[in-house]
Amino acid sequence: MPASPIRVTVWHEHVHDRTSDAVKTIYPDGMHTVMKSAIEEHLGGEVQVRTALLEQPEHGLTDEVLESTDVLTWWGHCAHDQVDDAIVEKVHQRVLEGMGLIVLHSGHYAKIFKKLLGTTCSLRWREAAEKERLWCLMPGHPVADGLTDEFFETEHTEMYGELFDIPTPDELVFVSWFEGGEVFRSGCLWNRGKGKVFYFRPGHETFPIYYHKDVRRILANGVKHVAPSNRSSAPVRLNAPCIEKPLSPISTEHEVDPSLH
Amino acid sequence: MPASPIRVTVWHEHVHDRTSDAVKTIYPDGMHTVMKSAIEEHLGGEVQVRTALLEQPEHGLTDEVLESTDVLTWWGHCAHDQVDDAIVEKVHQRVLEGMGLIVLHSGHYAKIFKKLLGTTCSLRWREAAEKERLWCLMPGHPVADGLTDEFFETEHTEMYGELFDIPTPDELVFVSWFEGGEVFRSGCLWNRGKGKVFYFRPGHETFPIYYHKDVRRILANGVKHVAPSNRSSAPVRLNAPCIEKPLSPISTEHEVDPSLH
Amino acid sequence: MPASPIRVTVWHEHVHDRTSDAVKTIYPDGMHTVMKSAIEEHLGGEVQVRTALLEQPEHGLTDEVLESTDVLTWWGHCAHDQVDDAIVEKVHQRVLEGMGLIVLHSGHYAKIFKKLLGTTCSLRWREAAEKERLWCLMPGHPVADGLTDEFFETEHTEMYGELFDIPTPDELVFVSWFEGGEVFRSGCLWNRGKGKVFYFRPGHETFPIYYHKDVRRILANGVKHVAPSNRSSAPVRLNAPCIEKPLSPISTEHEVDPSLH
Amino acid sequence: MPASPIRVTVWHEHVHDRTSDAVKTIYPDGMHTVMKSAIEEHLGGEVQVRTALLEQPEHGLTDEVLESTDVLTWWGHCAHDQVDDAIVEKVHQRVLEGMGLIVLHSGHYAKIFKKLLGTTCSLRWREAAEKERLWCLMPGHPVADGLTDEFFETEHTEMYGELFDIPTPDELVFVSWFEGGEVFRSGCLWNRGKGKVFYFRPGHETFPIYYHKDVRRILANGVKHVAPSNRSSAPVRLNAPCIEKPLSPISTEHEVDPSLH
Repeated sequence: MPASPIRVTVWHEHVHDRTSDAVKTIYPDGMHTVMKSAIEEHLGGEVQVRTALLEQPEHGLTDEVLESTDVLTWWGHCAHDQVDDAIVEKVHQRVLEGMGLIVLHSGHYAKIFKKLLGTTCSLRWREAAEKERLWCLMPGHPVADGLTDEFFETEHTEMYGELFDIPTPDELVFVSWFEGGEVFRSGCLWNRGKGKVFYFRPGHETFPIYYHKDVRRILANGVKHVAPSNRSSAPVRLNAPCIEKPLSPISTEHEVDPSLH
Repeated sequence: MPASPIRVTVWHEHVHDRTSDAVKTIYPDGMHTVMKSAIEEHLGGEVQVRTALLEQPEHGLTDEVLESTDVLTWWGHCAHDQVDDAIVEKVHQRVLEGMGLIVLHSGHYAKIFKKLLGTTCSLRWREAAEKERLWCLMPGHPVADGLTDEFFETEHTEMYGELFDIPTPDELVFVSWFEGGEVFRSGCLWNRGKGKVFYFRPGHETFPIYYHKDVRRILANGVKHVAPSNRSSAPVRLNAPCIEKPLSPISTEHEVDPSLH
Repeated sequence: MPASPIRVTVWHEHVHDRTSDAVKTIYPDGMHTVMKSAIEEHLGGEVQVRTALLEQPEHGLTDEVLESTDVLTWWGHCAHDQVDDAIVEKVHQRVLEGMGLIVLHSGHYAKIFKKLLGTTCSLRWREAAEKERLWCLMPGHPVADGLTDEFFETEHTEMYGELFDIPTPDELVFVSWFEGGEVFRSGCLWNRGKGKVFYFRPGHETFPIYYHKDVRRILANGVKHVAPSNRSSAPVRLNAPCIEKPLSPISTEHEVDPSLH
Repeated sequence: MPASPIRVTVWHEHVHDRTSDAVKTIYPDGMHTVMKSAIEEHLGGEVQVRTALLEQPEHGLTDEVLESTDVLTWWGHCAHDQVDDAIVEKVHQRVLEGMGLIVLHSGHYAKIFKKLLGTTCSLRWREAAEKERLWCLMPGHPVADGLTDEFFETEHTEMYGELFDIPTPDELVFVSWFEGGEVFRSGCLWNRGKGKVFYFRPGHETFPIYYHKDVRRILANGVKHVAPSNRSSAPVRLNAPCIEKPLSPISTEHEVDPSLH
């Protein structure tokens, strides 16, 4: 059964990799190209990946793009406020309809993430180039597929620590240990409407995180996992239909005041 | 240890009980007075209850009121759009800080509920005065305290049916059976920040639901359950503190580009 | 990427379909053959399906069979006690190692199900040939893939009702409405170790439930969903390793009394 | 409303504190007396605490004791196998009926814990007297009541690390950071039947953990939290009642083969 490829859009804020020499050195063609390559490396013909940037018209997320996207990945940091609320509404609607969403690293403060979760999504942080060790709590989970040990490490990175102000994840796949003393829920999944949301912490821009083999693998696993499974079934109704005719008989019909609705 | 009373604010839209004869007949002094009496009946000196109405300045939810509210109950139906966004923001902030919130019946479409949950909160509905039977799935749960059977019924009510577009509840206490053929998650709990949110379905305005003994009991149980437990502890930090000094030593300090933050 | 087929073993108690004329009429070759055909109908070359019966040596679940099974489906009713505890132990171990398990209908009282869940798994029941309507609460879930409406029905069946004494499911996909007044959590998923457990209610033996098109589809979806995803990764360690050498340096080593372990 | 006191039984294996000089020095009167004092210190007249030991007849858990216990705390390490299966069955039954259970530290391998959870409950461990820092993930949770910071520490302790082979907790309150590089889910809650189960990691016998002010507070909070809330309501039915008479009318009664049940 040759399934149609998963259509992925890699969205990137694309500010630091234009303005900071440190970031430019690591990502000369932008972080989005490296994220795109990670997904393609692992999923090959199973995916079709394109990119979209904040600076483009409608941030690259036109109706046409959104409607033909199965999975959207999101990286942002210093320009969350520049994302148009109307675009956020459209992305939100698409997630509820079934589009998968992967929010990366500093994207925890993205408008779309806070809107889907309903909390502040705040956290502790420190930029001291310390070691992070990510422990897998669900070794049978598809997003952990292919890991060969109980943890993996990034040698130098920014720290994110609890309290991470999020709703309890439906699934908690990774918890990070930081050299400086904190822990963090680094791989979290939530269902929202028909869509799946995956938050994955790694990705600080001043370190070559998206070249790390396990980070690349998990990003690709995530794409596969949050892709909508039932692309052929009836669309979900997210509005509120009035069902006038009952499915089963109601014994005693009462008079209902018709003026109320 | 004589604990200080739980300070409850019963918020009510208060439109139908002024404009509809059918509702006025059932609730001549407004639904809020009957909800208030239910809470007081069961909790007596354990609570101090006041009411707040949409029509009042700041909808009755001034900073002073919100800051002195431990639990807010919310009933609205036809005037959700008239609730000021600035008030919704303040209520949201208070929930994250620990204020309990009980959303009742048609409040599923209230701005504050959708903002906390991140979904459309839509559902099926039908107004045919049918029977509802609420089954308890967690018989040991505090909000079910005092129920003497595995279910309770309301004889005539509006139907709400699945799909109820909500995030998976952290706890699912009641599921309703409707005569006309639907089921519904009628008693749901979520944690958001330090606060607890309880959605409780019963409460249609054209039936005397808030005089029902089990509905009254569960409303009061809910107040007690979502009240913040640790009123004396340090306030939660919901912003994002930078922790410059690590708690534990970091072996190799790297140079960090200071221009990035 | 031509993945290797999912190896499915359909386990069946196979008592009623030998002793009851009513059941024999519906399932002349046994229920297991019809379940097998349902899985093959939908998954074709993606699966290799065999059957195993209580009456066989080691109930058909030899070490060789279990080790080469990716997904085990389980139907039992009146002979749960005849299942050897040693076999239950082996199945339990295999689930923790990653084998998917689908427990059907009256299998809620199977030893393996109670052992995995830790509760009595009791429920209300009634055999009155009433209508069941199964509502989907997670329309984007893989096990609901291909359903074209918000619910499906079986015209005549046995009733199971709450309280279903189970741990809160990790995912609750279906809730049933019964004509006689009950509700029931009919499609539930739990993770245990590396394995996924799917309970699916339909399957009463005196009605032709396993010929129903939606039941067949969901059974096949379930097989696909609980199949282990990472068949190639390192085996999980379910024993308790002592990690003598710390991963990161410990500043102050204390003297530890060696007599204790 | 002067509620009746919570009746607590502190169960202790009581082997190391008789056989090891290191443990005897820390707990000259046994660990159970120190755990008892912690609960009494914080809850005073709200509790009545007694102790029970492995060495006593029926391990101190006679029917009379179990029936008059609202909350049972459990500490064991090297003698899990000496606990009589018949006693484990009785404790299991009492938890499902609503008795709260707190399992401490090495109790993760207790028969009753594994029976309630359905998994191996294995973990990594190391005895190197390292630092543990317990982060609170649910700052509004009753078991965290009274903590004044986002974490607390024990200076020297045994390490427990992930993968902790448990079902996903219904609530995850604490995650530990260990100096040597691991993380661990140290404060977990599950519902089983009408009962609540709280696992709390601290408590290694060769360090004075049960004298630590935050450990003592959380142990007492746990007692209060898992105590059954509705001690006055109808007992839960954990058997499987046949409900012959439907609650609501069934339109078409079919003939049911009476030989099957």
